[in-house]
Amino acid sequence: MSDAKQIIEALGIKAKAASRNMRMIETRIKDEALKIAAGLFRSEMTEILAANALDMKAADENNLEAALKDRLALNPERVEAMAQGLEEIAALADPVGAISDLVYRPSGIQVGHMRVPLGVIGIIYESRPNVTADAAALCLKSGNAAILRGGSEAIHSNRAIAIILRRALSEAGVPEDAVQLIDQTDRALVGALLAAEDYVDVIIPRGGKSLVARVSADAKVPVIKHLDGICHVYIDAAADADMAVNIALNAKTHRYGVCNAMETLLVHETSACLLPRIVADLQAKGVEVRGCEKTRIACDGLQVNVASDEDWATEYLAPVLSIRVVASLDAAMDHIAQYSSSHTETIVTADYAAGQRFLREVDSASVMWNASTRFADGFEYGLGAEIGISTDRLHVRGPVGLEGLTTQKWIVLGHGEVRS
Amino acid sequence: MSDAKQIIEALGIKAKAASRNMRMIETRIKDEALKIAAGLFRSEMTEILAANALDMKAADENNLEAALKDRLALNPERVEAMAQGLEEIAALADPVGAISDLVYRPSGIQVGHMRVPLGVIGIIYESRPNVTADAAALCLKSGNAAILRGGSEAIHSNRAIAIILRRALSEAGVPEDAVQLIDQTDRALVGALLAAEDYVDVIIPRGGKSLVARVSADAKVPVIKHLDGICHVYIDAAADADMAVNIALNAKTHRYGVCNAMETLLVHETSACLLPRIVADLQAKGVEVRGCEKTRIACDGLQVNVASDEDWATEYLAPVLSIRVVASLDAAMDHIAQYSSSHTETIVTADYAAGQRFLREVDSASVMWNASTRFADGFEYGLGAEIGISTDRLHVRGPVGLEGLTTQKWIVLGHGEVRS
Repeated sequence: MSDAKQIIEALGIKAKAASRNMRMIETRIKDEALKIAAGLFRSEMTEILAANALDMKAADENNLEAALKDRLALNPERVEAMAQGLEEIAALADPVGAISDLVYRPSGIQVGHMRVPLGVIGIIYESRPNVTADAAALCLKSGNAAILRGGSEAIHSNRAIAIILRRALSEAGVPEDAVQLIDQTDRALVGALLAAEDYVDVIIPRGGKSLVARVSADAKVPVIKHLDGICHVYIDAAADADMAVNIALNAKTHRYGVCNAMETLLVHETSACLLPRIVADLQAKGVEVRGCEKTRIACDGLQVNVASDEDWATEYLAPVLSIRVVASLDAAMDHIAQYSSSHTETIVTADYAAGQRFLREVDSASVMWNASTRFADGFEYGLGAEIGISTDRLHVRGPVGLEGLTTQKWIVLGHGEVRS
Repeated sequence: MSDAKQIIEALGIKAKAASRNMRMIETRIKDEALKIAAGLFRSEMTEILAANALDMKAADENNLEAALKDRLALNPERVEAMAQGLEEIAALADPVGAISDLVYRPSGIQVGHMRVPLGVIGIIYESRPNVTADAAALCLKSGNAAILRGGSEAIHSNRAIAIILRRALSEAGVPEDAVQLIDQTDRALVGALLAAEDYVDVIIPRGGKSLVARVSADAKVPVIKHLDGICHVYIDAAADADMAVNIALNAKTHRYGVCNAMETLLVHETSACLLPRIVADLQAKGVEVRGCEKTRIACDGLQVNVASDEDWATEYLAPVLSIRVVASLDAAMDHIAQYSSSHTETIVTADYAAGQRFLREVDSASVMWNASTRFADGFEYGLGAEIGISTDRLHVRGPVGLEGLTTQKWIVLGHGEVRS
């Protein structure tokens, strides 16, 4: 057995044992652990910042690029935000143990569902050290044990944060092995974690596309993952003009680098008269517009570049938008079926039948009617916090909160019934 | 690209196209297709039996063992049962399109869930030809497209059944590619199906342990699977004597070869006085009993063989039972945590606190209190029909009915809201 496999097995055995205990820990104890950890983040801030300084020094030495360094850096405000994040998770309702749909069956037994933790969750993430606290807290509150694998460039910060979390667990009477950090940077450990079917129930990768793709290609353990966010707004023939313009602008320009930003605008040809106004507003905000032939004709006099087939399949994550004029609702849905990453799509329409069809027929994790795609978010949906957004089909789709980190078992309450 | 990969891709492209259509087909059309198919099974019975006769002839020539031949054989009663199965599925409620939990958020948007089909489901199964009809019907009713791969020994029967199903789909106005049979017996096709991530959303293996293990080891597509059923009955200190004896006997002897039969009986030492009665009753029914030392002492004078560690980890699927006397509820739950396959466990007790703990702390797909493990079944739970029983943790646990073949998407109803 390789060293990596042995290290992961040792962590896995401890995580499984902790997870059995975690399943039945009372809500107030889990909340207490989160609040103690928040307090320790504040009282031990000097320690955390000192550890982060080591990572920042190494980042300088390794000429890490500026964007990565910004993600890596901690300061008092960011540590305070981590502490508050834990307190917010402590304030959320505990999904574990909830019983639903308990009904009597003709045999006399009562059958229903009980919500239970998934078990052991592996989180593989990149440079942001705050993920260590966030992800651990969400796993803890949902009754799971977590095995955390952060980026090697954040190892000192992650260690300092994990030590505080484990101290808080221990002080609250929660098994400290409910949170374990893989604290070596050997990449073979990731491979061993992805193969640890006997110890890990699910892997959640958090990071860029290449990390997620690598994890899902290699994992033997089930993965909950987020791939692309190629989101569409479709302005229907019957769209209210001001609403359409507002939603299109918000979906594109509210933030550029986020997965729920619009990347392609589809416009019914009857509504193409709105395009000059939309394009002028977008350009005033510095957005580059690429359009189909009809878009360019509709925007005569404005600078609209030619959109290629590749544009329809691109997640820009930048101030760039592709626009296509379509002949019908069906053509819009065909375009979405072909190019969407099934993340989030919106229709803007006052037409009941068109909205109903779009809601039903578009197969994305979030399907909206007269609202900005930017609402596809755990906080906006009322989950309180999210561990990520799933673009998978099984188990959980869209924003993943505490409930997405649980599953259900069947419970049967009998009175001595046997099968005849 | 290999031939197998090409064949599966061709099927996959057609299945994906059919699946987009299937998502929005009205319930009454799907039901009509199922009823037409039931009618055709009756009117074309001669054809089906003739095809089956070819498989039976080949089975004779290949010296197939008797049990396999029994599974393979069709007769008028079995074909009629298939027809009735379709009619029963037609009578079930359609889960697709159901909207739940639609609430207003502070931003003004309404957020909720809509139940939607999984997409394309691959079913890999063994000799029983009736699975072709059952599995296709469950996929159809839940709005999915199915790619079916049956055992090579049943190829003629499966072809005849698939032709009828597709004819029924076509007559009802459902795309006939919603049901496709892989009608070559080349084993490379199974490998290509398991790797077809772009076309298949989930694979469900139905068959013996070796089939299921092979499918889950090789699949790149997510799998919903059933592995072992090592089910336990625990007779607590506070168990009612008659109830305990009844449940133990029913859980073991109602049927032997089924996954929800009891394989190990755990008895609190206070209740060990019940063992002579239970063992005598079991032996009267021809069950071989293997016990721990304390069981053998309690059953002095009865033939109790020595249970080894291997017995605790064995799914007998036969008239054999292992029995262990434990010192406490905790010891019983420790045994279950170590040896159970997380399928189904029951506690027999009149003690509220013990029952509550067992229900909460035992981590199996079905956890019961005062009822026979034999109730772990889609029909008994009210699902109407089941495609199998999942021993996985994600997506769906225990009996899998129509709802288990669907997932949920988020829907947002807005009034022009944008994020600020």
